[in-house]
Amino acid sequence: MSPTQTNSEAKNDAGEHGYSPEKDAYLKRMKRIEGQARGITKMIEDDKYCIDILTQISALSGALQSVAIELLDEHINHCVLNAAKSGNDDEAAVKIKEATDAINRLVRS
Amino acid sequence: MSPTQTNSEAKNDAGEHGYSPEKDAYLKRMKRIEGQARGITKMIEDDKYCIDILTQISALSGALQSVAIELLDEHINHCVLNAAKSGNDDEAAVKIKEATDAINRLVRS
Amino acid sequence: MSPTQTNSEAKNDAGEHGYSPEKDAYLKRMKRIEGQARGITKMIEDDKYCIDILTQISALSGALQSVAIELLDEHINHCVLNAAKSGNDDEAAVKIKEATDAINRLVRS
Amino acid sequence: MSPTQTNSEAKNDAGEHGYSPEKDAYLKRMKRIEGQARGITKMIEDDKYCIDILTQISALSGALQSVAIELLDEHINHCVLNAAKSGNDDEAAVKIKEATDAINRLVRS
Repeated sequence: MSPTQTNSEAKNDAGEHGYSPEKDAYLKRMKRIEGQARGITKMIEDDKYCIDILTQISALSGALQSVAIELLDEHINHCVLNAAKSGNDDEAAVKIKEATDAINRLVRS
Repeated sequence: MSPTQTNSEAKNDAGEHGYSPEKDAYLKRMKRIEGQARGITKMIEDDKYCIDILTQISALSGALQSVAIELLDEHINHCVLNAAKSGNDDEAAVKIKEATDAINRLVRS
Repeated sequence: MSPTQTNSEAKNDAGEHGYSPEKDAYLKRMKRIEGQARGITKMIEDDKYCIDILTQISALSGALQSVAIELLDEHINHCVLNAAKSGNDDEAAVKIKEATDAINRLVRS
Repeated sequence: MSPTQTNSEAKNDAGEHGYSPEKDAYLKRMKRIEGQARGITKMIEDDKYCIDILTQISALSGALQSVAIELLDEHINHCVLNAAKSGNDDEAAVKIKEATDAINRLVRS
């Protein structure tokens, strides 16, 4: 691990996360979200009615929020719990702080 | 216009909307949003850390909300105002109702 | 009107706004919202379970958002439309800008 | 404990929660939030400009969200961690599910 590597990059080395068992399902949902984004671009290209575009943006936003909330759930169920169970209170505290900051960004985005 | 055609489909015929003068700028922003979505998919494929994925989801959500709020602004500035100025109060009322419903969906998505 | 008076203070002089005809209904809803806030304070005083408190906070948030969205709707239906109909395009533009900024704050609050 | 008592009512018996050490600070913040709600009611009574009322509603919403996010943080730091450390995996799972549901309601309220 190089000295410039960030904390979260270090974690990527492991390549095993809370969401890993559901990775295929997440990839499928993200592919659908990519399709929704392309659909919105196409609506603008085709001069569709602005309110109809807004409806699709809300649908895409909702789909993204669902993915985010499930990722958070996996983060707490795995990263936080594993740290807690291994008696590593400092690491558990760091991971909970990361979760809370992520919730804060989500609620306000 | 066939009797089964919806109100908003009828409007698409015109092909001229509040956002039309800025169409290229919107398309550029949507292309960037599509890229952000693909980036998130890639992060999951590459087993990136869940909190880093959540940060990107919030960024994408924020970018989408900005597009939505500007589209709403154009809708009010054009569709609503034009109806009001032409003395078509019923159409203005319909268009304001559409805007309010869209805001409601945005706030809750 | 004194030179230091802000635009919105000036408008308060009129004492007549889009929401005025529904003023009693809004006051009733705000009284209920005040009661919800006091209820949450009481839950904390009584050491209620944090998740139950969060449920009540979401309910209060939702009630507030509904009031906000209806106020916005009245703003567009009255302040914006009246400016547009009277041919005062600059004032209409200012009022739409105010509405868009308010939507932006709402979506991100 | 009576058979009709809910899970969360049962927890209230303990009277000791994650937020307990900060109870006074939370009560102070809730009192300020109650004051903000009364201020908004007064603005409507006094026929203040709708956009100014919306600004205050966003401020109140933001204050509520901050309280909610800190309560969630305490919930994870205490209720979830304690269950995890005591090896009570089922209870930890229940408490994480409660947290995720609360986040979901918050994000969409």
